[in-house]
Amino acid sequence: MRIGVIGSGNVGGTLGTRWAKNGHTVVFSSRAPGSREMKQLVDTAGAMARAASVPETAATSEVVLLATPWPASRDALAAAGDLSGKILIDATNPLLPSLDGLTVGTSSSGAEQVAGWAPRARVVKAFNTVGYNVMANPRFDGRGALLFYCGDDAPAKEAVRDLAAELGFDPADAGPLVRARLLEPFALLWISLAFSPGHGRDFAFQMLKRN
Amino acid sequence: MRIGVIGSGNVGGTLGTRWAKNGHTVVFSSRAPGSREMKQLVDTAGAMARAASVPETAATSEVVLLATPWPASRDALAAAGDLSGKILIDATNPLLPSLDGLTVGTSSSGAEQVAGWAPRARVVKAFNTVGYNVMANPRFDGRGALLFYCGDDAPAKEAVRDLAAELGFDPADAGPLVRARLLEPFALLWISLAFSPGHGRDFAFQMLKRN
Repeated sequence: MRIGVIGSGNVGGTLGTRWAKNGHTVVFSSRAPGSREMKQLVDTAGAMARAASVPETAATSEVVLLATPWPASRDALAAAGDLSGKILIDATNPLLPSLDGLTVGTSSSGAEQVAGWAPRARVVKAFNTVGYNVMANPRFDGRGALLFYCGDDAPAKEAVRDLAAELGFDPADAGPLVRARLLEPFALLWISLAFSPGHGRDFAFQMLKRN
Repeated sequence: MRIGVIGSGNVGGTLGTRWAKNGHTVVFSSRAPGSREMKQLVDTAGAMARAASVPETAATSEVVLLATPWPASRDALAAAGDLSGKILIDATNPLLPSLDGLTVGTSSSGAEQVAGWAPRARVVKAFNTVGYNVMANPRFDGRGALLFYCGDDAPAKEAVRDLAAELGFDPADAGPLVRARLLEPFALLWISLAFSPGHGRDFAFQMLKRN
């Protein structure tokens, strides 16, 4: 395919290079198409890759990968021009500059409300991200289902971690209670898949780590 | 431990039963503690389990599992009374009655903004949930890293799925573009863990399915 990469940083550079090596035609663009970094990227990506301006990149591509920092995304799309009928892969994330929140759509959580309703309890968000069928048996071919938990009280979290581990889960600390803003959408992702036609609910996630 | 279960449905019933069989003291409560279902649940859970009212359940427990339907959660905590110093496991999710959204905190996504900025493009959210190091090599001991994508254009999604699969990912369709409201928090979960002390960024997720 003819793939244009808008935002040729770590993500755009990595994906574009790999697609070029697989034989796709790849055009990298950035705000500095003539820079040393871009020349190096094109060299690394090989014969199927070149650099161009943002509008040319968009105009010559069937697939456009948007991999810009969030604050640059709107202007980058404006510079790209008309994308009618093209596949636009949105690989951005609307992160706060601090990287600890989203600028869009994630402003609170049920867990924070619960903590407000039980003000002196040591609240730990847990057991919300998979269905009861997984709770009944969290082992999948000998591997434990991932179970995220979060909270602000370290000893309480350790107790909950142990209560999960003894059931066969692979517990993972997701941080402070405010991370429930991430775990509740993660739960809804599980629910959405469980109710998708042809998917079914007997699934869970595992964390893969490189040794 | 002495564990109290508030909301003894599928989740509370399953976890409480398993903890009771592991030797913990478990008290189940619900709005109908004398019902046939509760008697059956206590029978199944065995000698370490009993049923009680919500306030008694809370008063006699070190750990309280909140596993109520979201709309009942606030009243259940009010009925539980003072939980000072107790561990409160929040296993609820603030789901809409339709189960396709959250009542709290998840109202939009970057992808929907991007689609607004590129109105005739066929937007697919993808490659936003793991770091570039995983994109460089999504294989973990021969297993492919999970890569969610979502969008409203089926052929565009198939093209993106193929572009992910050829790189070694295990692509998974998360549904329509509005599911970016779930995939962007999922991305932030990856980022949060990657930047956690002692964790590192060379990890990804896998979907486990039961055969």
